[in-house]
Formats: sequence, structure tokens, C-alpha cells
Amino acid sequence: MKETSRTVVFISDGTGITAETLGNGLLSQFEDISFRHVRFPFTDSLDKADACLQRIGEIGLQEGLRPLVIMTMMDVKISARLREADALFLDLFEAFIAPLEQELGQRSTHSVGRSHGQENREYAKRIAAMNFSMAHDDGISAADLKNADVILIGVSRSGKTPTSLYLSLQFGLKAANYPLIPEDFERDCLPDSLLPFRDKLFGLTIAPEQLHRIREERRPHSHYASLANCRAEVHAAESLMRRSGITWFDMTSRSIEEMAVHLLQAINKKQELA
Amino acid sequence: MKETSRTVVFISDGTGITAETLGNGLLSQFEDISFRHVRFPFTDSLDKADACLQRIGEIGLQEGLRPLVIMTMMDVKISARLREADALFLDLFEAFIAPLEQELGQRSTHSVGRSHGQENREYAKRIAAMNFSMAHDDGISAADLKNADVILIGVSRSGKTPTSLYLSLQFGLKAANYPLIPEDFERDCLPDSLLPFRDKLFGLTIAPEQLHRIREERRPHSHYASLANCRAEVHAAESLMRRSGITWFDMTSRSIEEMAVHLLQAINKKQELA
Repeated sequence: MKETSRTVVFISDGTGITAETLGNGLLSQFEDISFRHVRFPFTDSLDKADACLQRIGEIGLQEGLRPLVIMTMMDVKISARLREADALFLDLFEAFIAPLEQELGQRSTHSVGRSHGQENREYAKRIAAMNFSMAHDDGISAADLKNADVILIGVSRSGKTPTSLYLSLQFGLKAANYPLIPEDFERDCLPDSLLPFRDKLFGLTIAPEQLHRIREERRPHSHYASLANCRAEVHAAESLMRRSGITWFDMTSRSIEEMAVHLLQAINKKQELA
Repeated sequence: MKETSRTVVFISDGTGITAETLGNGLLSQFEDISFRHVRFPFTDSLDKADACLQRIGEIGLQEGLRPLVIMTMMDVKISARLREADALFLDLFEAFIAPLEQELGQRSTHSVGRSHGQENREYAKRIAAMNFSMAHDDGISAADLKNADVILIGVSRSGKTPTSLYLSLQFGLKAANYPLIPEDFERDCLPDSLLPFRDKLFGLTIAPEQLHRIREERRPHSHYASLANCRAEVHAAESLMRRSGITWFDMTSRSIEEMAVHLLQAINKKQELA
């Protein structure tokens, strides 16, 4: 089949991040087509809607194929105006608001970017968590670890830092991380500063071959990056974690988003049992 | 109206983050109802679907009201099994895959977590960007700034760090950030190390009152946090940016996600003009 190309226009009265994330999932199901992305975030007035309309028309003329429009739009007037364009509309709100209204026996407020006290508290929590994670990255500080929600351990470059930052920015968890280093393997026990917090320690591990590739980019041809050293460190870290009773996860074929959700589940489970 | 409460079950064969993000937007439209979240990520087998089914049934019995189920599920067999439950189903994929198939004249692959070369490259780019942003947070290093996609400037605690990290983790942009400090205001010009990169500098500013509140949490009753000093610093930073021709944005009533998207638009616009 000949590879074709289509333009996708993402329109939102907010950031459009949700529309694009869901859109990426949907579009990845059509392998033979390449999609060009055009974005109209913060489309919160009829004037801005008119600018979208014009652009959609131009794209349709240029390409001879109407674009796909994926949108999240609370305001029904703006939504109606946009629909005057010739495009395939996938409206993530419209599709679900009506069945929700019926199920809940209530009209929706149709308002954008609602700023509940609840949301402000959640936001402040995420920012505080991010500050905590930055201050406790890579074992920089062992102070204040009693306030951590989770402490990740693992060898250098096993994915601790991005996972910690994602846990804080997305889920508002205070995530510290601590490297396991050759000294720990020689002593063959966890760093002393972590011992009081065993119940919130989780480990990350990674296939030595992948670790080797990652470290080579950082320090090419070093002992640190060599496959032999990566094998030895991963082996030592895993046996240390095993003997210390630390639950660990393998980053090898997982994204940071997937790892963050696995950790979230493990943390919740532990808290339910406690 | 009496406040009611409903349980929402998020089910996905992936992380479920998209389902929950879109769900939060939808549910925030119903102000008088409080929603309890239950999550079933990585539901990628019929056995796991059966566990969901059972839980959904239990919730319905306990609460006397069927739960809402918001899901992203590629696998049609698992999807069909889940629909045996008594719940309101909002299926983000099902609603849009059929119209997309028709528009594109192609069947979707109905497969989960597709790992295109494309996606792996995007992922590697995001991780590299995050490493760059961590290494260039708060002016730690001025080396390598030529490789930055964007350099944020602003007074301490104006939101540079979370915005930089979000730009890198979400959008794969190498975002450095550099604090504007009293010495810069005295000299009344941008730090020397930034001068060669004027075309990728953007500023963040913030209302002095909000800055004061944020700094008070860090260093209560300090000169640094005092309202008078916050006013003076914000004023000096804005006039320095104005005279240097730096575009800047106001964080005061914006979230980091909103700010990141505004910056992305500004960066793209500049690149189009260049």
C-alpha cells in the first residue's frame, strides 16, 4: 500500500495536551499513514475559532483532502463555530458529556479551566513534590528523607532521575533517589542513611546491555561504561536488593510513564497493607 | 442540591494516564458530585479483565449505583469482556476508531503500546532533553548552551525549573534556565554567558505578591522573601528584559503545562520567522 499523509489539527480551549496524547494513541493504529500535526491551543474566543476555520480551509485546499480535527472544547458556541469547517471532527468532550449528564442526572457547567480550591491544592502539591525530588536527586541530600513518599535506588543510569521527576510532576509524590555505588556492593549492604526508610524503598534495574549503551554515550570507552562493569554492577545491585527484601522493577523495556504507574500501584498496595 | 458521590473506574491496557487526564476534565464539569477514583492500568489479559469485572460488580453492590468506567483499550476481546459489567462505559478508543477507519479508508491495527522506531527516537530525545535540563538548571552550567532549544530567565522562584523540566519531559526540548540575580540588575544587563544566545532566551515573570508568598515558604521573614524586595526584583527583571528585547510570559495565573505550551508556540513562531 502506498504511504499517504494527512494533516491533523489539534484544537483546545486549554493546552491541548490531552487531545494530542489521546490522538497519538489513536493515530498510531494506522501504520501506513504519516500524520502532520498542527496545533491551536488556547482557542477560547470566536475570533480564534475563525483563525482555525481559515487554516483548516487552506489545508483542505492545499492537500485536496480535508484534515482531521481532534479537539477538547468546553464552550459550545466556539465548538459550533469550528464545525462550520470541512473536516473530520473528533470531539473528545462532546462525545462523552451527554452520556455523563444523563447518568449523573445533572447538567455540566461547560466551563473551561475550572479552578477549584481542590485543583489549586493539587497543583501546589505537585510543585512542592518537584522541589523535593530536585533536592533529593542522586543522593544529593539524605536530610528530610522521612518526608519522602518513595525512595528509588539503583545503579547509575538505571532511570531513577526521570522516574522520580515524573512521579513528582505528574502524581505529586515526593520521590527521592539514591544511587547504589561500588562501595555499597563492597560493604554488601544498603547505605546507612536509607536503613530507617526500608518501607518506602523501591529498586530499579535494567539489562546490562542497555545500561552499557546508555553509559557509553556519557563516558565512551570508560571502565564505568564497559559491558563487564555494567554486568557486575547490575548483578551486585540485584543481589543486594534481593537480600534486603527490596521490591524492584525492570526499566529495560518500560517507559518512565509505565514505570511511574507500576511504582504508584506498588506504593498504594504497601500503604493498604500497612 | 445534596452532594453525591460516585466511583469512577479507569481501565487501560497502557498506563491509563490519558484516560484519567481526559476523565478529570470531563468530571470537573459536574461540580456537585465528588468522584472516587479506582485505577486498573496494564489490563492486558482476559484474566485481568475478569478481576476488573468483579471489582466493578462489588462497587455497584456496595454503593447501590453502577460505577462510571472510563477506558482506553485497544484489544477488542478484552473490551468486550469488560462490557459484561453493569457500568456506564466511556470508551475513548471505541468512540473514535470507527470514524477514523472510515475517513482513512483503512483498518486500524488494534494493537497496544506500539513501539515504532519513531516512538523510540522520540523517547530517547525526551530523556536526553531531561538530562540536559537537569544539567542546566538554575545556571549550574553555561557550557553547552549552544545546544539548548530554549533558555528561560527570570528571578528566583518565578517557575523556571518546573517549566524547564516539563518542556523536556513532555516535549523533548532541551530547556536550560538561568536566574536573574541582584548583580545582573546592578550591572543592568543580561549575564555575559547568555548574550550569544539572545534568540532563544525567553523570560518568566510573576506577580510580586505571589513571589513573596512562595519565597516566604522557603525562607520565612528574610529580606529575600520580603514583599518590598520581591517588588524591586520583579520590576528590575522586567525592565531589563524589556530593554534587552526579550519576550516574557507571566506565570502568575498559569500552570506549568500552560506555560510550557505558550513557550512552545513562541519558540515555533521564532523558528518559522528565522
